[in-house]
Amino acid sequence: MNKYEHIQLAAYEANMQLPELGLVLFTFGNASACDRDAGVFAIKPSGVPYEKLKPADMVIVDFDGNTVSGTMRPSSDTLTHAVLYKHWKHIGGIVHTHSTYATSWAQTQTDIPIFGTTHADHLTEDVPCAPVMSDEMIRGDYEYQTGFQILNAFENKGLSPEEVEMVLVANHAPFTWGKTVQKAVYNSAVLEEVAKMAWLTRQIRPDAPRLKKSLIQKHYERKHGSGAYYGQEHD
Amino acid sequence: MNKYEHIQLAAYEANMQLPELGLVLFTFGNASACDRDAGVFAIKPSGVPYEKLKPADMVIVDFDGNTVSGTMRPSSDTLTHAVLYKHWKHIGGIVHTHSTYATSWAQTQTDIPIFGTTHADHLTEDVPCAPVMSDEMIRGDYEYQTGFQILNAFENKGLSPEEVEMVLVANHAPFTWGKTVQKAVYNSAVLEEVAKMAWLTRQIRPDAPRLKKSLIQKHYERKHGSGAYYGQEHD
Amino acid sequence: MNKYEHIQLAAYEANMQLPELGLVLFTFGNASACDRDAGVFAIKPSGVPYEKLKPADMVIVDFDGNTVSGTMRPSSDTLTHAVLYKHWKHIGGIVHTHSTYATSWAQTQTDIPIFGTTHADHLTEDVPCAPVMSDEMIRGDYEYQTGFQILNAFENKGLSPEEVEMVLVANHAPFTWGKTVQKAVYNSAVLEEVAKMAWLTRQIRPDAPRLKKSLIQKHYERKHGSGAYYGQEHD
Amino acid sequence: MNKYEHIQLAAYEANMQLPELGLVLFTFGNASACDRDAGVFAIKPSGVPYEKLKPADMVIVDFDGNTVSGTMRPSSDTLTHAVLYKHWKHIGGIVHTHSTYATSWAQTQTDIPIFGTTHADHLTEDVPCAPVMSDEMIRGDYEYQTGFQILNAFENKGLSPEEVEMVLVANHAPFTWGKTVQKAVYNSAVLEEVAKMAWLTRQIRPDAPRLKKSLIQKHYERKHGSGAYYGQEHD
Repeated sequence: MNKYEHIQLAAYEANMQLPELGLVLFTFGNASACDRDAGVFAIKPSGVPYEKLKPADMVIVDFDGNTVSGTMRPSSDTLTHAVLYKHWKHIGGIVHTHSTYATSWAQTQTDIPIFGTTHADHLTEDVPCAPVMSDEMIRGDYEYQTGFQILNAFENKGLSPEEVEMVLVANHAPFTWGKTVQKAVYNSAVLEEVAKMAWLTRQIRPDAPRLKKSLIQKHYERKHGSGAYYGQEHD
Repeated sequence: MNKYEHIQLAAYEANMQLPELGLVLFTFGNASACDRDAGVFAIKPSGVPYEKLKPADMVIVDFDGNTVSGTMRPSSDTLTHAVLYKHWKHIGGIVHTHSTYATSWAQTQTDIPIFGTTHADHLTEDVPCAPVMSDEMIRGDYEYQTGFQILNAFENKGLSPEEVEMVLVANHAPFTWGKTVQKAVYNSAVLEEVAKMAWLTRQIRPDAPRLKKSLIQKHYERKHGSGAYYGQEHD
Repeated sequence: MNKYEHIQLAAYEANMQLPELGLVLFTFGNASACDRDAGVFAIKPSGVPYEKLKPADMVIVDFDGNTVSGTMRPSSDTLTHAVLYKHWKHIGGIVHTHSTYATSWAQTQTDIPIFGTTHADHLTEDVPCAPVMSDEMIRGDYEYQTGFQILNAFENKGLSPEEVEMVLVANHAPFTWGKTVQKAVYNSAVLEEVAKMAWLTRQIRPDAPRLKKSLIQKHYERKHGSGAYYGQEHD
Repeated sequence: MNKYEHIQLAAYEANMQLPELGLVLFTFGNASACDRDAGVFAIKPSGVPYEKLKPADMVIVDFDGNTVSGTMRPSSDTLTHAVLYKHWKHIGGIVHTHSTYATSWAQTQTDIPIFGTTHADHLTEDVPCAPVMSDEMIRGDYEYQTGFQILNAFENKGLSPEEVEMVLVANHAPFTWGKTVQKAVYNSAVLEEVAKMAWLTRQIRPDAPRLKKSLIQKHYERKHGSGAYYGQEHD
């Protein structure tokens, strides 16, 4: 019996959902689940195929990126997860994928515009794209700096990570998070769909306007206002 | 034994078809089945994952949106269904999805042009897009007003809801209907395919012409004329 | 025991392959298999869902479109099949689908250009698009005239139906054929893939050149020349 | 018992993975596995459907393209494989597909630009496109010359086949390779995903910039530098 079993199981199940949802090819993704009391998170080991993964393989890492328990090397993106857990104290799970449409938007270095209510039901801002990292950051501790690039993008754009639970890292790919790792997986799937629809919208009508303010505000209030009446998820 | 069982079963089966047909992600859709004699319809409860849904979970609602039977909260789009059932007395089922291609057209705020016989076999008009709602409608009873926005669009465009069983709501997503909820599900799948083909047609040839009048009329007559010889469905 | 059993079985199996290959939605397609000695073909009945279809449901029709055996109404496209069988004496099977990419090209009223060897391995010409029918033809015996529109397109373009086993009918959808109905199914799948690749090729490079003559000729000779060394199918 | 069983099994398993990964339609692909000590490779027979394939069907061929063992005719692309094995002494497996997105890029006759880290994790160059073959090469020993066209493209562009394990052949389709045939299959799937993302990136932003040097170099060093810390595969 092991005291990290609950986050290992949560992280394992989240990782296994990623190929089922069509969000990862081979091992191009990773999910982690956090235990705030213990100050650690469980994350997928590096490069192990999904079909061979077991809950006990999840590596336990602290918020400075040190391995606390586990024999395998954690995912190469572990330091990015650690930085986000350390600075955003409300989040309980993180997912990183190279999902096709979200990654293509990341490769364009642009935010995904808010075009409709599918998007507004989940966030009332464009999906932010953290800018390309400076040569100094890249040549330094790259994965660690990726975490700070995300933190800085939220600060510079005045965004709250409790409201906006997803980001694109320019030329790289998306990260999503949530109170639980299940919510972070859900957000990754929503982001991929929103990214595909935004691309199609622009294809059909290159000058398609962003969603107007009153609709954004309405959807914000359905979820967050004093008279919120919106269910667990959009339907 | 419950007197609404038949519409609960019909609504349940229709809802379960939506993910099978690739028309919804998570819970982003809802189907309802109507009992005209009883003056009620059965609709999916809000935010319950499809894999946990049971026929008895379907909430029974009247045409003013009041819950008549059921313990769960009905879909957040229930008032839109209620308005359509109340004013369009021939329809027996309604489906709402956020299917990828139809929703992307809705986000462009434009009708889907009729480009071929796949479209003309089902309706002889462009798929109408109800315009963006006014700020007053949005700030008022939003889902209720969505129903009226659809009714108004049909009146302004001179369309018959018996001929045209589908609509896009600008910046939101499609609604479809029919004499039965099975037909409404069928229409949702047809709409998604027509939306995808119309996008591709414009991609290949930006100035592709609409279908010419004689072909539209021919297909109309195959289905509706005195010498109609067209089967249950296109083949 | 029934003397048409062999073509009923062949037509049934071909029809069942169409949804498996992703080429039809609901009942939007039909396949037929011909018995030249008996002067008849077996074709799918109109509007019966694939999951309910049985070999014995296939309707037996002669080359003038008269039903010879069977209780159900044959596919609404039966007369098009009849015309092609009557005039092209070497073909043993025909398939009609509304497959997404080929149908989108048909809606643009343009031939699919030959851009690569995937195309050239199967035909050394652009995939022809029969022009939009005249109002007279449409208002006349529409499905019968569709057959003649295809015959005329081949004559006007100087194409041989033994070399080119596929056609787009403008604003409608593709037809394919072959010595057997199995080959016609194969051709429908190849056409859909070629149609998708041609669209993508133009998307990536709008002025992409057609395949050059020496490559077209090489591929023609691999299949048809005196020193042909090409297998059953491309690999 | 047969001394080529190990490469027959490896080639068989690799061939069977191609349709599972969505990389081939019908028989439009082939994989081969090499035994350097024996100076031969095992390759799929020509035109046999995947569902009928058995390990013992794999044909054993030497590096000049002569069949050493086996009763079936080897794939029509066998001579291309032979040329690559003969000249690139480090490779142990080759895969050829007509996968949709990579083939569409090949049909445009252009390299696939490096736009993001999904690409850079696997190769730090654009995916090269070997130019269209001269009429002389095409009219000569076509498949043999295709091998030399690939060798020449690598020499002219100053690329190493140990660093860049994939190529497009203009107007034809991709070839990939690796130390093992499993790695070559992996590379074919990665190439298809990279090709799709590069197309989407250009669709969203036609002037999207290539990945900057410091990021390319960083990813190169993660895999190849003295301080390499990158796992078996990207995650």
